[in-house]
Amino acid sequence: MKPSNKKSWRYKLHEIIYEADTPMGKLFDVVLLFLILLSVVLVMLESIKGVDVKYHYFLNISEWIITIFFTIEYIARIITVKKPRAYIFSFYGIIDFLSTIPLYLSMILVGSHYLLAVRALRLLRVFRILKITRYVGESNKLVKALKDSRAKILVFLFAVLIISIIAGTLMYLIEGEASGFVSIPVSVYWCIVTLTTVGFGDIAPITPLGQFLAALIMIMGYGIIAVPTGIVSAEYTKTLGKQDVLGKDYVHVNTQACRNCGSPKHRDDANFCHKCGEDLHPDENPLV
Amino acid sequence: MKPSNKKSWRYKLHEIIYEADTPMGKLFDVVLLFLILLSVVLVMLESIKGVDVKYHYFLNISEWIITIFFTIEYIARIITVKKPRAYIFSFYGIIDFLSTIPLYLSMILVGSHYLLAVRALRLLRVFRILKITRYVGESNKLVKALKDSRAKILVFLFAVLIISIIAGTLMYLIEGEASGFVSIPVSVYWCIVTLTTVGFGDIAPITPLGQFLAALIMIMGYGIIAVPTGIVSAEYTKTLGKQDVLGKDYVHVNTQACRNCGSPKHRDDANFCHKCGEDLHPDENPLV
Amino acid sequence: MKPSNKKSWRYKLHEIIYEADTPMGKLFDVVLLFLILLSVVLVMLESIKGVDVKYHYFLNISEWIITIFFTIEYIARIITVKKPRAYIFSFYGIIDFLSTIPLYLSMILVGSHYLLAVRALRLLRVFRILKITRYVGESNKLVKALKDSRAKILVFLFAVLIISIIAGTLMYLIEGEASGFVSIPVSVYWCIVTLTTVGFGDIAPITPLGQFLAALIMIMGYGIIAVPTGIVSAEYTKTLGKQDVLGKDYVHVNTQACRNCGSPKHRDDANFCHKCGEDLHPDENPLV
Amino acid sequence: MKPSNKKSWRYKLHEIIYEADTPMGKLFDVVLLFLILLSVVLVMLESIKGVDVKYHYFLNISEWIITIFFTIEYIARIITVKKPRAYIFSFYGIIDFLSTIPLYLSMILVGSHYLLAVRALRLLRVFRILKITRYVGESNKLVKALKDSRAKILVFLFAVLIISIIAGTLMYLIEGEASGFVSIPVSVYWCIVTLTTVGFGDIAPITPLGQFLAALIMIMGYGIIAVPTGIVSAEYTKTLGKQDVLGKDYVHVNTQACRNCGSPKHRDDANFCHKCGEDLHPDENPLV
Repeated sequence: MKPSNKKSWRYKLHEIIYEADTPMGKLFDVVLLFLILLSVVLVMLESIKGVDVKYHYFLNISEWIITIFFTIEYIARIITVKKPRAYIFSFYGIIDFLSTIPLYLSMILVGSHYLLAVRALRLLRVFRILKITRYVGESNKLVKALKDSRAKILVFLFAVLIISIIAGTLMYLIEGEASGFVSIPVSVYWCIVTLTTVGFGDIAPITPLGQFLAALIMIMGYGIIAVPTGIVSAEYTKTLGKQDVLGKDYVHVNTQACRNCGSPKHRDDANFCHKCGEDLHPDENPLV
Repeated sequence: MKPSNKKSWRYKLHEIIYEADTPMGKLFDVVLLFLILLSVVLVMLESIKGVDVKYHYFLNISEWIITIFFTIEYIARIITVKKPRAYIFSFYGIIDFLSTIPLYLSMILVGSHYLLAVRALRLLRVFRILKITRYVGESNKLVKALKDSRAKILVFLFAVLIISIIAGTLMYLIEGEASGFVSIPVSVYWCIVTLTTVGFGDIAPITPLGQFLAALIMIMGYGIIAVPTGIVSAEYTKTLGKQDVLGKDYVHVNTQACRNCGSPKHRDDANFCHKCGEDLHPDENPLV
Repeated sequence: MKPSNKKSWRYKLHEIIYEADTPMGKLFDVVLLFLILLSVVLVMLESIKGVDVKYHYFLNISEWIITIFFTIEYIARIITVKKPRAYIFSFYGIIDFLSTIPLYLSMILVGSHYLLAVRALRLLRVFRILKITRYVGESNKLVKALKDSRAKILVFLFAVLIISIIAGTLMYLIEGEASGFVSIPVSVYWCIVTLTTVGFGDIAPITPLGQFLAALIMIMGYGIIAVPTGIVSAEYTKTLGKQDVLGKDYVHVNTQACRNCGSPKHRDDANFCHKCGEDLHPDENPLV
Repeated sequence: MKPSNKKSWRYKLHEIIYEADTPMGKLFDVVLLFLILLSVVLVMLESIKGVDVKYHYFLNISEWIITIFFTIEYIARIITVKKPRAYIFSFYGIIDFLSTIPLYLSMILVGSHYLLAVRALRLLRVFRILKITRYVGESNKLVKALKDSRAKILVFLFAVLIISIIAGTLMYLIEGEASGFVSIPVSVYWCIVTLTTVGFGDIAPITPLGQFLAALIMIMGYGIIAVPTGIVSAEYTKTLGKQDVLGKDYVHVNTQACRNCGSPKHRDDANFCHKCGEDLHPDENPLV
């Protein structure tokens, strides 16, 4: 655990890329965020035919510039982390890779059929935007509340699915193919559409019995929507209560990430990584 | 209450089929779950015309294999339980029977008209999937919260129904048959569709007065959706609170089922069935 | 306050009609409930053309029988109550009158044009069903929770209305008449349909800007649906808390009604009417 | 801080216009509220073609009368406030100006093209209605609960947006242009429509894979609607709790506004403006 007193360029770069506590780190994050949003907007614009025909060249150049920036950023992330493999195979490492590679792949693999498949990969770049949640402290609380009630919500959603299968099957038998209930899977799909109160209306019952069953399904959906709400409400109140007891750092709001293993979510007053023991603030260490 | 010291094959089979505490019991439940899901998927696929025409033979064979497995399982359940009648006339006993019998019935009763009715019975097999909830501990909590607020939810749903009847009648008088409000029942159906915020759009008001009343109904529906949610939320918080006080076994999470009467929901530390007094763990009993 | 020791027939009839504590009273309420439901179903069936043509005579006779029963019941209610005027001009008194009179009116006033207006009055008979809530104890709790949060819900609904007017006006300017936004009122109607997540789809934006604004409205609606729910949830929890403190009779579950003024909602242990001082149980009174 | 002992006409007018504690002030507010509502209704009626053609002259006159009243009111507000600039550039000052000016502008700027743009400005007058919330005490509590959970709701809505972008992109790739998914932005719009359970049905998936993904999106939307509800519910309960502790003036229910700087939300027992120190009740001041 010997801290390097002199800040190396790799250490400085790590500070900039992985943390948002310094002015340079903040600037980097804001620029990155802007570029991710821009790349998402570009992919969107490209999908609109009128826009693609008119600005094809401009969109193409812009995407290459962003891809090159993302490539540099990806390499920099690998260089500055002490254990690159931990980063590469982490959730964000894989997303970073998948959001950089598609444009390069589209150059090697030529052919109209293949290009379409590559495009699908390119669209995965939108996942990059998920990074934003890293920087927003409040999201941790939400994620915690959701995680705590995960099991309950899953059981609940499973119950919804069973009801949909049973009711969907009955609707298929009652309505028949005249009103759009052409098969049980389509009927189950309609049932989910109805139970969740979405109600597209592309498929709708026309027989009195079908409308009666549909009314029952709706009222049921209206009644059971209360269940997950009640669960999350209770769990969130609990989380809020715990936070009041344990203080503000119960949920982690800093952007600190270990230089060695890259693991986040350190306490605000942490000096060493809780995973690998790496010194988090080498130059501030009073013992050295 | 003389426990049989030597484990008989019936005792072993009971352990496997009715409980999920042993490795064999767990395997059995997983395989059963998989087969139930498969049978549901098969019924679904059969309802899609294109698939049924192409793979009719394969689907037929698969259904027979699953039906035979279900038959063996059903017989095994009856043999291993000490009081078979209690099982046969229990909720799951009836579902097990109804999900096994339709294919056999379709052999005896021939005729295009009758076959359709038998098909309806066959589709009841989807109820089998309900068994899954047996194995998920969390579901008990949900069921408890729902049961506790059952009376309130029923009153609430009844209020929704009354509002729908009154508003539906008014809409029928205002809109007339031009915009789809052909009779009061259809009008009430539309009202439920609107009040539950489903909104198919197959029937929609076109007169200014009708649209005004529809807007009132929607805002009302939007406002009263809060009521069941508030109820379940409060009840669930109470259940959660009780659980913290009474400990984890307040809600039953084990899969223990009595060998004698088949009643579930024993406490984790129970030695004897709370219904018939049968010894739950005969070979572990220190008194013997 | 001199109690009549000998039970008169008027006293006995009052017991049967207004209270549900005696076997005869219970029977009367169940029969009445059944007849109200039947009359609602009859009005519904009459509105379906096919049914009306086929069973016109039967429906007509049935309605006359029910109307005569309702007439007798209405007269009996007036006779048995000590202060008939208080009953006649009470909420239920007016509903009872309005649900009895239409059929008699349809005999006096003849003419196709007038008959239609009379029909509208006849349909008010569905209000009779509202009586049911009198007999269900749980409904009082719900009504209390709703009353306590009435002011907040009204302010909230008013906010929804303002948002709808502003957003509706903007949508009218953006979308124009091509996609169904023919006037501001229709546009506001669409906005309420969208904000309450009903979404009929008879009117839907087609311009990119209109779809963008629609998306904003939906997300807003999705976000603010939480407000009334939170309010009712908090209020209901408070009501539930109070009930635990004050005991079960905090919310009134008995069906007692004063013989003199007809006011309900007496405490379970009440001996005298809290409004007029009339003795509630004259023959049980130990002082006499 | 020298209070003017003698009530000047400006002081009296200030009392009437800015406060609702005196009978005259209440009357003024009610009349103003009525006129604002009337002007909103007039703008609405004008947008209906049939009405505009028939009553064009009447609507025109009515709007001029209201505009003149609003102009007088606007000037009176500027005169009676000690620091007019603070009022003019405040939120309500700008809304007051924007809801008065359009009719005058439509006289100077002539031309069919320009008139349409001016109309857009005129419609901003509906913002005037927002004033109503000033006078309703309950609204402050709601606004407070919403403000407290603003950060959480924003993070949540952001999460909804990310899910919509990802799912929308996938739906565009799966469904193609046949079923209305013509571009990624339209696809994202559809996804928001579905996730918020609005479900117009103008765009709906037709491929099995698209319907499966749509079902997933709906169930997800059904599950996550619980999150903001839970948040607001918990926050509101907290606000309710605080209010019980701090007393009724924790949320501000009086209509007092400073004569000097116009800032509202003074405590009920406040003697001096909490912003500029101006005496709030000069003639009641015991020190003078």
